Amino acid sequence: MSTATPDSLLALRDQLRVFAAERAWEQFHTPKNLVMALSVEVAELTEHFQWLTPEASAALPPDTQAFVREELADVLLYLVRLADQLKVDLRMAAQDKIVINAAKYPVERARGSSAKAPRQST
Amino acid sequence: MSTATPDSLLALRDQLRVFAAERAWEQFHTPKNLVMALSVEVAELTEHFQWLTPEASAALPPDTQAFVREELADVLLYLVRLADQLKVDLRMAAQDKIVINAAKYPVERARGSSAKAPRQST
Amino acid sequence: MSTATPDSLLALRDQLRVFAAERAWEQFHTPKNLVMALSVEVAELTEHFQWLTPEASAALPPDTQAFVREELADVLLYLVRLADQLKVDLRMAAQDKIVINAAKYPVERARGSSAKAPRQST
Amino acid sequence: MSTATPDSLLALRDQLRVFAAERAWEQFHTPKNLVMALSVEVAELTEHFQWLTPEASAALPPDTQAFVREELADVLLYLVRLADQLKVDLRMAAQDKIVINAAKYPVERARGSSAKAPRQST
Repeated sequence: MSTATPDSLLALRDQLRVFAAERAWEQFHTPKNLVMALSVEVAELTEHFQWLTPEASAALPPDTQAFVREELADVLLYLVRLADQLKVDLRMAAQDKIVINAAKYPVERARGSSAKAPRQST
Repeated sequence: MSTATPDSLLALRDQLRVFAAERAWEQFHTPKNLVMALSVEVAELTEHFQWLTPEASAALPPDTQAFVREELADVLLYLVRLADQLKVDLRMAAQDKIVINAAKYPVERARGSSAKAPRQST
Repeated sequence: MSTATPDSLLALRDQLRVFAAERAWEQFHTPKNLVMALSVEVAELTEHFQWLTPEASAALPPDTQAFVREELADVLLYLVRLADQLKVDLRMAAQDKIVINAAKYPVERARGSSAKAPRQST
Repeated sequence: MSTATPDSLLALRDQLRVFAAERAWEQFHTPKNLVMALSVEVAELTEHFQWLTPEASAALPPDTQAFVREELADVLLYLVRLADQLKVDLRMAAQDKIVINAAKYPVERARGSSAKAPRQST
């Protein structure tokens, strides 16, 4: 009998469904509202980095690191909830996007360059 | 011999490490830069919702739905990459945050209310 | 004797220069840092609106109105400071953009539509 | 007969009122929608800076400078329009905020430090 650990993105999706249902929060969880909440969480993350040099941003003091870990979690929770309300399977969407990015940024051309891929003409 | 599917967040983390290494992009992937990129991706998502009513945001036309699916993937990819550069295990951070949120928003008090939990005095 | 009131955007620019110089904050005020700070301020504004219906967002209770007024000011202050550090005259840039927008959204075609102007092919 | 130049923030407010009225865009210009649009414009600005070092962000090449100037204008236009829809006088709000900031960051304590003022306990 196999009791495999469920995939983390699926598990989160299901946990957040229960969390919202228990609190009758579905009424607030329109995609429009959730995308705003997501942007607020990303800004709470940004706040910790705004005055740091790039180098310092890669070596946070322990208390900042703890705050940042919690904000990263908030971003993931809202992202998973938003994707669920939009009926998007995040896992498949991410895999599809990696394929798109690999075509857009071929290794030989993208190497060492932060230049954005040219917009497709179609 | 069982080859279990790896957890999706771990698999993405590893795929993005290879993707960045092949393109020599680690030099650009400081947390400061990545949090900016993350905020740009969230705004590309926001753009699809800005003029919609909350009701319309929950019933997107198919072409918008396809764009939104791709933007959701972009947000996840940058989030996973940022967490990795910060040495944060997103899965554990998310589970810890669900526990915190459950304490902050007890079912009986939070029911049907979008009010934010009061800030802790400590 | 004429003592004209200086233009508000110019006056703010000059006040913020003095404010930063007195505190030796120029070292933190790179455009990269300031654009991050600007995005954080916009999110603090967003936070007040995220769970509101569009209708409720147009009729805020007095305490929210007071917070929102302060956040609007923060956004303006960082915007003026950022433009100054980039040597952009915001007043001229805004007037130029109004001309561009008028050409992009001719009255007869844009009337009652929130559709974005098609991207220029050039 | 004196025809003083009107203050730039007041002039913009009035121009944007006419612009929206001519296109029947008031229906879309709820504060909730406008704050989302504002966040999108800030991200379009952010996009130009995300991979730059702080030093490079202060010395943009001419083509980037031109794009950035236009994005700064967009941010200002949406900010002025949002403040107008919220019946906030941006000029007075900004002046009030400068007074608040001067009290929050006294010269002697804030000098050379990017540390945020401690949150008020009230």
